[in-house]
Amino acid sequence: MDEKARKYVDMFRQVKIASAATVDEGGHPRSRIINIMIASDEGMYIVTSKGKPFYSQLVKTGEIALSAMCPDCQSLKFWGKVKMAEKKWVDEVFEQNPGMNEVYPGDTRYILDAFLIYQGSGEWFDLLHYPIRRESFSYGMEEERAGYLITDACTGCGACTAVCPQKCITEGTPCIINASNCLQCGACREICPVDAVRSLYKSKATQ
Amino acid sequence: MDEKARKYVDMFRQVKIASAATVDEGGHPRSRIINIMIASDEGMYIVTSKGKPFYSQLVKTGEIALSAMCPDCQSLKFWGKVKMAEKKWVDEVFEQNPGMNEVYPGDTRYILDAFLIYQGSGEWFDLLHYPIRRESFSYGMEEERAGYLITDACTGCGACTAVCPQKCITEGTPCIINASNCLQCGACREICPVDAVRSLYKSKATQ
Repeated sequence: MDEKARKYVDMFRQVKIASAATVDEGGHPRSRIINIMIASDEGMYIVTSKGKPFYSQLVKTGEIALSAMCPDCQSLKFWGKVKMAEKKWVDEVFEQNPGMNEVYPGDTRYILDAFLIYQGSGEWFDLLHYPIRRESFSYGMEEERAGYLITDACTGCGACTAVCPQKCITEGTPCIINASNCLQCGACREICPVDAVRSLYKSKATQ
Repeated sequence: MDEKARKYVDMFRQVKIASAATVDEGGHPRSRIINIMIASDEGMYIVTSKGKPFYSQLVKTGEIALSAMCPDCQSLKFWGKVKMAEKKWVDEVFEQNPGMNEVYPGDTRYILDAFLIYQGSGEWFDLLHYPIRRESFSYGMEEERAGYLITDACTGCGACTAVCPQKCITEGTPCIINASNCLQCGACREICPVDAVRSLYKSKATQ
């Protein structure tokens, strides 16, 4: 894991409270609040108990999406792959999160299994400052791309700069989107008279 | 919407910051932080912009899962159905959430569409108090069931009460699970020597 990815994995652990999304047996989205229990260079560890639909969904799909909000309104989102970890990680989780003993006292902890999120791609997003800022990160796989690119088909008419809510497009031929300040709202693509704005979004999940 | 559902819909609106999960074009889970912009008897309103994968996923699947954490560590989770609302709801959202004008100033707001979460089933969960507490709610559809029930096959041996992390099973023949204090961890089902513990989970999403 590179330094940038580790920074954001540590941020998930620091916030601790995250939302975990999975796809259920019928292909429907599911979500619940979980804790990021351990951050390491291998990824993020979570726990859940054998009797929960969440557990079956993790085992069956091997996938998870996370999102979290930092106290200062920076947000994180992430998609990744997950696998069950050895039982010793349950003990390690309780070691690093002693509050867990109040919910699962004594040996009752062993109804839990630990899961390692061993690869994934995510994004940090700060909506509170102007201009907004975003940064991508990943570990164990390439970063997922998102947002828009203005191609050489651009005639420099400036229609996109006029409608951009964040004024993050520099005029020119072609105009240039400053991706780190972009809301990815798509207003530039909607207005472009020559269809010069191309979506960069290509889900890594589908590859 | 009944009073109980309205209470939790209002709680989502009060927390405001929620995680929204969807399923993408490849069947993979996706998640991001959003705001619950309006709570009403019709449901919850959110907005997103035309250029985002989130937007396409909402339009294509008509489904969303939410989770949120209240400041005092009570959590909410929810699954429901979503449809695009008339454009006037974008204005109503900006009226009720004036901070949105800083992100989408002036007419740039119209790259957004509003979506109404018009039905769904959810659960409130308080993990901080002992015993833990939970309550289900729904609007526009039946409440989704979850957790476990001990059937008449129970011999009253008490194995389940011994392993229950929350001590929420009353001994008897049959033993009885106090559902509102249950972690739904499944430890009782694992230990039961006569297979008397039945899962109540039946996803409403699949019906």
